Order: sequence, then C-alpha cells, then structure tokens
Amino acid sequence: MQWVNVLGGVVGGAALVGLGIILGHFAIPKGADVPTPSIFQDLDLEILESIMQQLDARRIRENLRELSREPHLASSPQDEALVQLLLQRWRDPESGLDSAEASTYEVLLSFPSREQPNRVAVVSPTGNVLFSCRQSEQNLTGEQGGPDVVPPYAAYAPPGTPQGLLVYANQGTEEDFMKLQAQGIKLEGTIALTRYGGTGRGAKAVNAAKHGVAGVLVYTDPADINDGQSSTNETFPNSWRLPPSGVERGSYYEYFGDPLTPYLPANPSSFRLDPDTASGFPPIPTQPIGFEDAKILLCNLQGASAPAAWQGALGCDYKLGPGFQPNGDFPGDSQVNVSVYNRLELRNSSNVLGIIRGAVEPDRYVLYGNHRDSWVHGAVDPSNGTAVLLELSRVLGTLLKKGTWRPRRSIVFASWGAEEFGLIGSTEFTEEFFSKLQERAVAYINVDISVFANATLRAQGTPPVQSVIFAASKQIPAPSLGGLSIYDNWIRYFNRSSPVYGLVPSLGSLGAGSDYAPFIHFLGISSMDIAYTYDRSKTSARIYPTYHTAFDTFGYVDKFVDPGFSSHQAVARTAGSVLLRLSDSLFLPLNVSDYGETLRSFLQAAQQNLGVLLEQHSISLVPLVTAVEKFEGAAGALDQRISALQKATPDPLQVRMLNDQLMLLERTFLNPRAFPEERYYSHVLWAPRTGSVATFPGLANACSRAMNTSLGSPAWAEVQRQLSILVVALEGAAATLRPVADF
Amino acid sequence: MQWVNVLGGVVGGAALVGLGIILGHFAIPKGADVPTPSIFQDLDLEILESIMQQLDARRIRENLRELSREPHLASSPQDEALVQLLLQRWRDPESGLDSAEASTYEVLLSFPSREQPNRVAVVSPTGNVLFSCRQSEQNLTGEQGGPDVVPPYAAYAPPGTPQGLLVYANQGTEEDFMKLQAQGIKLEGTIALTRYGGTGRGAKAVNAAKHGVAGVLVYTDPADINDGQSSTNETFPNSWRLPPSGVERGSYYEYFGDPLTPYLPANPSSFRLDPDTASGFPPIPTQPIGFEDAKILLCNLQGASAPAAWQGALGCDYKLGPGFQPNGDFPGDSQVNVSVYNRLELRNSSNVLGIIRGAVEPDRYVLYGNHRDSWVHGAVDPSNGTAVLLELSRVLGTLLKKGTWRPRRSIVFASWGAEEFGLIGSTEFTEEFFSKLQERAVAYINVDISVFANATLRAQGTPPVQSVIFAASKQIPAPSLGGLSIYDNWIRYFNRSSPVYGLVPSLGSLGAGSDYAPFIHFLGISSMDIAYTYDRSKTSARIYPTYHTAFDTFGYVDKFVDPGFSSHQAVARTAGSVLLRLSDSLFLPLNVSDYGETLRSFLQAAQQNLGVLLEQHSISLVPLVTAVEKFEGAAGALDQRISALQKATPDPLQVRMLNDQLMLLERTFLNPRAFPEERYYSHVLWAPRTGSVATFPGLANACSRAMNTSLGSPAWAEVQRQLSILVVALEGAAATLRPVADF
Repeated sequence: MQWVNVLGGVVGGAALVGLGIILGHFAIPKGADVPTPSIFQDLDLEILESIMQQLDARRIRENLRELSREPHLASSPQDEALVQLLLQRWRDPESGLDSAEASTYEVLLSFPSREQPNRVAVVSPTGNVLFSCRQSEQNLTGEQGGPDVVPPYAAYAPPGTPQGLLVYANQGTEEDFMKLQAQGIKLEGTIALTRYGGTGRGAKAVNAAKHGVAGVLVYTDPADINDGQSSTNETFPNSWRLPPSGVERGSYYEYFGDPLTPYLPANPSSFRLDPDTASGFPPIPTQPIGFEDAKILLCNLQGASAPAAWQGALGCDYKLGPGFQPNGDFPGDSQVNVSVYNRLELRNSSNVLGIIRGAVEPDRYVLYGNHRDSWVHGAVDPSNGTAVLLELSRVLGTLLKKGTWRPRRSIVFASWGAEEFGLIGSTEFTEEFFSKLQERAVAYINVDISVFANATLRAQGTPPVQSVIFAASKQIPAPSLGGLSIYDNWIRYFNRSSPVYGLVPSLGSLGAGSDYAPFIHFLGISSMDIAYTYDRSKTSARIYPTYHTAFDTFGYVDKFVDPGFSSHQAVARTAGSVLLRLSDSLFLPLNVSDYGETLRSFLQAAQQNLGVLLEQHSISLVPLVTAVEKFEGAAGALDQRISALQKATPDPLQVRMLNDQLMLLERTFLNPRAFPEERYYSHVLWAPRTGSVATFPGLANACSRAMNTSLGSPAWAEVQRQLSILVVALEGAAATLRPVADF
Repeated sequence: MQWVNVLGGVVGGAALVGLGIILGHFAIPKGADVPTPSIFQDLDLEILESIMQQLDARRIRENLRELSREPHLASSPQDEALVQLLLQRWRDPESGLDSAEASTYEVLLSFPSREQPNRVAVVSPTGNVLFSCRQSEQNLTGEQGGPDVVPPYAAYAPPGTPQGLLVYANQGTEEDFMKLQAQGIKLEGTIALTRYGGTGRGAKAVNAAKHGVAGVLVYTDPADINDGQSSTNETFPNSWRLPPSGVERGSYYEYFGDPLTPYLPANPSSFRLDPDTASGFPPIPTQPIGFEDAKILLCNLQGASAPAAWQGALGCDYKLGPGFQPNGDFPGDSQVNVSVYNRLELRNSSNVLGIIRGAVEPDRYVLYGNHRDSWVHGAVDPSNGTAVLLELSRVLGTLLKKGTWRPRRSIVFASWGAEEFGLIGSTEFTEEFFSKLQERAVAYINVDISVFANATLRAQGTPPVQSVIFAASKQIPAPSLGGLSIYDNWIRYFNRSSPVYGLVPSLGSLGAGSDYAPFIHFLGISSMDIAYTYDRSKTSARIYPTYHTAFDTFGYVDKFVDPGFSSHQAVARTAGSVLLRLSDSLFLPLNVSDYGETLRSFLQAAQQNLGVLLEQHSISLVPLVTAVEKFEGAAGALDQRISALQKATPDPLQVRMLNDQLMLLERTFLNPRAFPEERYYSHVLWAPRTGSVATFPGLANACSRAMNTSLGSPAWAEVQRQLSILVVALEGAAATLRPVADF
C-alpha cells in the first residue's frame, strides 16, 4: 500500500505524534502477566543494577565445587554428567531459560592407553632401565590418584618408542634448533628436551622433526611458572605454585576444530579425512614430564653450557648435550627412551545450548560461552568460567521465569565440548550454523577461565567491543578496593595512550586460545574474552601454575586463586553487564569507529616497518592510506548519524538498519580466499602474524616471505595481492558504514 | 528501557491498539509535499497499474534508435557517450532518479589490430594466396562499413599465424575431436573448421589444442541459425535471417570477470596477474568467419563424409579432410593459413548506477541491470534491453520527482560495461561491493536482450523468484492476443507439471550467459533474467540470426524482431511489475518453499541416476533425503507463519525479520570452499554441471569423475565430501528458515 492511499481522508499538517502512541500500541500488556514487548525496549539500568546485585559470589563458589568435584575430560562419563547438570539448570522451572538442548558431534580425540602407559626412561647401552620418569603426578591432596585422572600426555602425539641421546633444545622453536645445529650438535635421532613457552605445543615437535629429532619431551621450568621456586614447601598445597611432579597436559594439534572434518560439522554422516593422511598432528612421539624428572635429565647432560637465556631454575647449569656427562647419575652413553602409546578415538562430544528468546528482535543473537571439558578437575580451566556462566544464567533465568524481564535480543548460552583438544565443540557449532550465525550474531562473549588471579580485569576483543566493556567496567566496583571501579583498577595494570581517548585500559587482541577463535576468525563475529588476572609485578608465571595439571582443584581456587570469590563475582558482573548491554540496548553498543584507531596504528606500523622495503619493490601504500581514511571518514559520519538519531524519534526500522551496519561491520573484514592455507582464518586483520610488529597480518607475512626473494618473484606478487585484498576489504567495510542508499 | 518502566502508570487490560495508531504516527505527512513514509508501506496496485499504463512502446523504440545509432564496443568513445546519455537521463530533474554515478574499472580487453587485420586464407604449396575470407561483413544497409565496426574476431584468442591442412571438426567438442581421431585423422598441425553451438566458444580452441590442432576457425551454419536458408534474397535485409557474410563475434575467454583481477575489483591500484600467465584464454589462434566463406572451405574438403549429425545446410556433402579434394577449387595439398593479430589492452570501462532511495528500508536493494556495450550496433544485444531499462527508469523517475511515489526499498539500476568480453562490469561491481550486496540485496533482475522474438515471455531464475514473476505476468496482457495474459500465453510455450501447483510455465535455470552470473553464483543473490522470445515451432535458430554481427541494427529490430515494439512493452511491464513488487511489498514476494520442489526433483534425479553407483561405493543418500525433508518442513512452516502474520497486525520488526529470512535464504547455499577450481561458482545448487541430469552439480560432477576410479580413490572421497557439503548447506538453509530463536 502506498502512503497517500493508506491515509485516506487523514490529510493535513499534523506533526509527528510522539513516542507514546507507538508505545501505546506495542507496549500495552495483552494480559495480566504476559508483557507485550515494546518495540523501543531499551537497556533498563535499574534492572541491570539489580542483576549486578543478585550475582552471588557464594553461589559461584558452590557451582565451582560441583563442577570440579570430579575429573571431566572431554567425552568422559563425568563430562556427560555435567551436560545433564547444565540441562537441568537451564530447564529449571524457577530459574531456567526458554529452552536448552545438547547437541552431539562425533569427533576425533586422542588418549593415552590404559593398558600401556606412556613412559620416559633413561636406558643403559645394554638396555637396562636406569631411571623412569613418573607416570602420574604425586597424590598430594587425595585428588591426584583416582582412575579418572588422565595421566600426563601430549594429545595427538603419535605412538612410537624412539630412543636416542638427549639434547636440550630450550623452547623448541625453529631458532632454538638452528642454534643447536650451529653449535655442531648432530640432532638426527636424538630426543629433544624442551620447555613450555615460546611457541605452540605442537610446533615444538614439528620443528624438532625437521631436524631429524626422533622424540620430544616437554616440561615446565620453575623459572617460567613458579617465579623460580621449586621446593615442596614452596609449592602446592603450600602455595599456589606448581609442585615438582605437576605436568601440563595439552593438545599438540596444530589447527582447531575436529581434525577429520575441516569446514564441516562432525555429524555421524559427515565426510571424514583418513586419520593417516589428516594434517596438523605432531610428526614424532612427544611426552610432557614434570620438572622434578626434567631436573634429573637436564642436570646430567654433558656438552657446552646452554646460552644464558636458555637457563632455568632447576639449580644446575643447563648443558646442551647430546648425551649425559660421564661422571653423572648415568653412564655417558645412556640414551633416553620415549614410549608413547596414545590412540586416536572417534568419540561423542556434546555442546549444550541454552536460549533466552529475544522479546523484540529474537533473530539477533548475543552469544555467551565457555567450554565444559577439562584435563583433570579443571577447577580454574574451565570450571571457574562455567561457575560464573551458571550464576549469570540463574539470575537471568529467574527474572525471565518471574516474567519481569525478557531481553530485546536473543541470548544464547553455550557450554562447549572438547575445547581442550582444539576448540572442537565451538568450531563444529560454527560449521553447522555458519549461515544463521553470520546473518544474525551480534557478538560472542567468551569467559573461559574467569579468574586466573585476583588483581585486575583483563579483556581481549576486537575494537567494536571496547566501548561496551569500558561502559560495563566503569559501573562495577573492583573487589576490596574501596569503591574503585573495575575500570579504574584495570587501567592501573594494562593501559595505552589512545589518540582519541587519551589513557585507557588496553584491550588485548584475540589469538586462538579459546572458543572465540572460530567466531572471530571463521565467521567474523565481534568477539571478546573476559577474565580476572595477575598482578604482573608479583609474578612472571606464564600462566597460573597448576594449569592443565591434576592440582587444578576446587581447593586450589578456594585457597589461592580467589578466596571469597569476589573476583569471580567481578567477572560475572562485568561479563553480565556486557551481555545485558548487547542484548537489551536499543542502539547496539558496538563502537565501530574504534576500528579506525586500530587501522591507523596498523597502517603506521606498516609504513614504519615495511614502507622502505615496499618502496624498493615499487609497491605503494597510498591505496591503503586512502582506504584507511575512507574508513575513518565513514565511521565518523556514522557516529554522527547515530547521535542525531538517538536525539530524535527514530522509527524502529531506522534503528534496526543502523544496528545492522554495526553488527555486520566485522563480517566485512572476512575473505575466505585471503589465506587459503590457514585453516579457518579468514579475517584479514586478525589472522596469525609471523612477525612481532602489530600490523596487517597478510601484508606482513607476505613481506617476510618475499624479503629474500628477487624482484618480480611470485612472493612479491603475493605481497601485492595481499595489499589489494586488504584495500578491498577496508574499502568494502567503509562502504557498509556509509549511508545505506549510497554506492 | 524495559517495558514495565516505560509504561509507568499505564497498566491495565487494554487490548492491542489497531494499525491506525501506528499509521497515525508514521504516515502523517510532515509538510505539504514531502510525504513521511508509512512504516507499513505496501505495494499499491493502483500505482502499479498506472506505471504499467505509462510504459510506452514508442518511447522504447526511440530509446533503441538512440542507443543503437552507432557501434558502441566496450570502452569505445561511443560506449563512453552512452555513459553520458545514461547519466543525463538518470539525473534529469523531471524524470531522473535520486542519484546516478559512473564508476570506472581498468580491465583487460582484447581487440583486433587496426594495422594488421586478421586474415584467413587458402595458400598453395608454393605460398601463393589462392583465396582469402572476407575481413569484414558486406555493407548491406550502409551500417556495416564504418570505421567503428569492429571486424569479426575471437576476443582473447592469441596472435599467431598457424598454417596447416584443414579438417572439419563439427562443433569442436571433446567428443568431436575424439571421433576424428578414431577415424585415423591426424590432427597435429591442422586447422580445424568448427561451427558455433554445442559448447562454449573458447572450449572449441581448448579441445582442439589438446589434440595438437594449430588454429581454429568458427562459422555459423545456416542449418543452425537460418532454418537452412542461406541465399541473399532469403536473408537480411530481406528477412530476419543471417546474410552469408555475417559473422558472430564473441569472447573466447573461459571464465568471467576481468581476467587479470579475479576476486578483486579492477581498480587502478589492484593487484594484477601477469597476462602471460593468466588462465582462461584460448590456447591457439582462432578466428570466426561467415558461412559464405565457410562454404568455400568446407565444400572443397576431401576425405570421408562427416556423420549425418555433422552435416549442415551449405549445399554440399561435408567431408572431414584433412586437406582439399584434388579436383576442387584448390590444389589438393593447399593449406589454410589463419593470421590473428589480436592484442590485449588495459582499457577503462564504466558501469553506471542509478539509485532510488527506499522510503522505509533504504538498506534493502532491488537491483535491475543490463549491460551497455555491444559488439557493433547491438540493437538487439543489448540495446533493446537498455531501451526498456530507460523507459522503466523514466516512468519511475517521473513519479519520484513528482513526489507521489517512493519505493519501500531502494532500487538500484545498473548499466554494466564490457559484458561482451565476459560479464566484466557486473563482476567487478560484485567484487567491489561484496559485503554490502551480500548483506542487503533482495534480488537481481537482469534484462539483457529484452526481445529475441515476439512470441512469448521466457524467464530464468532461482526458485524464490518464480512466484513474483508468475504474479506479475498474470496481471499483464500479452501483446495482440485479445487480452490473454502474458502468463497464459507463456504457459502455452514453456510449461511443466509442478507437484505443488499443477501445470505452470517453466522457469529456466541460470547459467552464466549474462550479468546475473556473478550475482547468483558468487554472491548468492536470488536472480532472474526476463525476455520475450521465439515460437520454437517456427524457427530452430540457435539464437536470433544476426547475433553479434554488424546486421544487428535498429532497422532489424524495427522491421523483423518486434515491429510496433509491443513485445518490448510487455517485457518492460513484466520486469517493471516484478521490480515494483520486490521493492514495494511489505512482505517480500519471494517464495522460498518453491526451493523445496527443486531440491526434491534434484534428489529424485540423484537417486535414479546415481543411487546404484553410490550404493556400490557404500555412500548413502539418506542424510541428503533427511536434509531435503528438513528443508521442506521448515519452508512449509515458514509459509504458515507468513500467512498468519499477514492476517494479524504484525509489528514492523516482525515483518523485517521474516523478510530477512526470505532474502537471505539464497545466501545459505553458498560455500566458497565447495568448488575451489571453479572461479566464482560458490552456489552448491547452480554451479556448472558436466552431465545432462538436472541434479546437484557438485555431487554429479564428482560422481562422473570418480566413476572409473577404484574403490577408495581420492575421487570417491571427493564424492563423499561433495555430498557432505551439500547436506550441510541444505541443513543450514533449513536452520535459517526455522523460527529464529530455535537452534
């Protein structure tokens, strides 16, 4: 119908009727207790404040106790029991959500053999076992000894029993092995002892194998995790530090997602790669050990002293090997045998999804998730995040069931399966619901480990979420700091000087360390990860010391990480406030113009670090400069239109159109053809960077590959291609921010 | 704000207030002549009818006269003059659009040399030229002789001067060359004479080169284009038939889009492939000739008679060669020399975009386009489409400027450049605006050649557009048929039995024959192509006879194709009505459940034609059956929700959410990783199929490649992968159609 005819007789100079008429239509309850939503429903600060007050530290503590009572390795019966727990909570008639379902994928996991435990031993030339490393951690609290405590292993490391002279290879980076080679050390057939840090787990074995190494050991040096302390009375259960027998488990798989079904959900009928030809597994047997055992191996090595940077806190001079010193604990020609009996198994792993249907825009999803599976009890990783998730869903569910609140947009809570093996549950979810998530997801909030330590908030995310995290954290008091806000505390620990805002807390960027990875890198959904973390002036630990060990227990959290659980409460409030703001605000609180600041800084870094090199190859950055300027201009103008609309009386479709521009901006940075060799990485701004300069990854990586090739090489053509991909993405992004009827 | 608080004191049992209050708010004019749009603005049938009446056959005729006055080859000064004409029309203060702009790309075109014309000659063993083919068409109407008439050539065929014995290779398909080889004919070093049809232009040269052929000639047989007629008095200007000297020009490039910038817009700064290594060009020199010349070559060949299906209407027995018969016009050992001097050139080519801003949902685009460039005058191809486009934009622009109408959604009119060289302008546009088009485009309407002949409507498109084309065509009278509707006339010529609707006109599927290709295959935007066409009982011509020749002139159209231009008017009305329905209807008239019928028929074809083969390889179609059923179920339920909502008083966001489901369905069938070797083809239902069975292309193609490989081969793994890709796409599509808060 056309407006003239619609009006019929109603002609005349009547001015705009106010908001009230619309509200009169949409907001009048249909019955006594079923509220009809107002199409203009906006964030209600009173309700938000009431939610903040209801988020209860004690309940989080009780959640954690229940969640971490037993080991719950992915696909184990205890993991499945937690699926049922989540379903029960989310289906509770008093405090549940609108609906909750578990969905199960059939995924390839890796486990040590129960019958043949992995073993690391020193073996004499005649074949006698002179020394064996522990095959499990010491039972210090009665929780490390049960049958469900998976022994330390390197998931996805292949079975095999290599034996050879031991060498010390520091962190097992490519550079570390090059250094050993430069020292004249023959690596062929050796066993390399490496320590955690410096590169990914699986990369240590990949690098080692390139040099002919036959097997890899990995340990955690007390210098890296315990601020140098290693004695029993300085470590758990006497402090938060890692005990000598503690071993970090972990996935050594290079990519993420189910290894056999890249880009496809791992449904039973899905096409699967042959495990023998699938890529990304460590090429050689690998096994992690504790520093107690590492010390015996390392402090007996012969050969030249390792460089100063390679030394640690085991109390001896670290030598390089190969082999043991003749007058040490073992005969000089003793070898190390690494026996790995890991098995690949197809297992069922479930995600649990809980949904609160949006009142006004149910087709806009704000997602909030954490994984559920742990290596052992996983009180910190991931259960203290799930404890927060359950408290938040309880408070929102209670309001929902009472009928006093329903968010404007839909909220999707997720408990992901098999994250520890490589973000598998979340990745399969994004593969299964690729289309609807790309069309409808507003943002993804990840709270994995909610509290690493109780000093300060730490947030990672893409630029559009900065403003909403700032807004939330300004309204919430930091625990035990006399009313100082979380924001004001945060800025003391992590800050940067923004050209636009001055001194602000610095938001970290997102790698692939948790389940946000498929959301941001594969789907282009604005994502964030929120936690409480360390005072870095008090510890230099790589991560909380019992990470991925059997000592990561409820008692550990309760006694050492966050006694009183006030940091947990702070994270629940911060993440909860962000969730509410995203789900309830009439105008989406995503500040896209903050991307301009990132683009500008990436550009400046490119100009400073790559400009001369590019010029030498006649590659101009001018189109990139222009594209960044266009983005800044379009984003600034959009900001002004938002402000104007907020002051006016917008119609609901005007708001929706604007919100669509904000929501979909992140998608415009995706190009599935940009990095075909980087599985899932399609975001041209956040794909992995090989260099240390914070700039555009495709351009930087292509430059570093082209650096030593000749003028006109295919590698230089790739630099130009990457530059064009980037320019087109930024121009396309700017185009989506311009007034919608402009081309 | 939350509804309870918004309401304040207003509580009570008040029922829903009617539509009127909303309209009272949004539809009341702000001033005397600036209408405020109603948020419920819907298609106005009176306005639609008035537009139908205003579309004027005489104006279309005058447009065509102006557009086809001069040859306007892509990037020529005359092409540029038409850019200015379009801008002038679309900026006209009385009948123009809201805005109009030209955007220019720098693209790789191919032209014959002016200095060294291409030449095809019979050469004696001593090197004497015994016969030369015409280098231009005969000047029959005074329009074939000007300097701007590009001589016949095969665009993108490489330069070279091969010479060899002539063979006749029918249509130059792979099968044709295999047959020649099976006959013991040595193809190495020969010149192959082929006729148009049976396969793509460029494929003839690709197939020939595989067999060692040195050069290719292509002609149009009177059997294929003239219903066998070939004499001067039976052909143009005495009839619509192709004169003996007429030569079909065309692009011999294999892909579409600018050859040097795949997936990137061809901006001046964009990365370009090296033309020497870019793929898709014909591998050997190729030249098209007229049947007058082809007759002299073909009727002098020696050797065995060609098979019956290879015979044509040149009035002699077609022999296979190689070489000429001894007692013919040439010595038996004479050879044919093909001298091609084509050059690749980077040229500026422009698109022109004209926009009508939507009143209510300006961020939803209904696109309507045609190319502008022709090979010579191009009165039929493409100017009779552009003549319709200009008349339609004039009528809408006039209403717009008068202030009496503005569409609900934005309308984008486009005049594409360099389509004849490979859909270049439209492809570059989709590459440049990839993100915003994927987010916002409702549909793309293509009217290239508007009238091939004046018998009946012919439409191609994806299933969601079927219903709107039916609705439009039912309301418009077919020309000169006493009030019979276009629909009722159409069903007499093209029909099928639909399981859902019974006998209906059959909608063709979209290949890559015009500018809709990048919209449907690359971006997943529901697309259609609309034209008036032949009575197939009266002619079996491959296409209208003067296609791509210098005889495709205004007089040709005016006298032979559509005297009186009533078929042009019928197309303007049909396409115009479709455009209005898509841009103005409150509920988008895209019937997604019609996709269910296609999926079901593709599934049945797969079961019948591939079922046994797949079973032999233990590949089950059950997951595909389930996925199709899920789609049908979700689409059917969505239809019911639409009906219910249409009867109720929906709020504007409910309608928008539903329309988003309809608009975005087509996008869910895209998978950029499905067919990485098929440039731009990402739509898992409409990618090119090698076989003749109308079924899922990825599955069918993979099966035909795997057919003769062993169990467990990589080709069979690819069949399983393609099946999974398909199942995931259909499940994903169904998921987007379900109620939006379901997962």
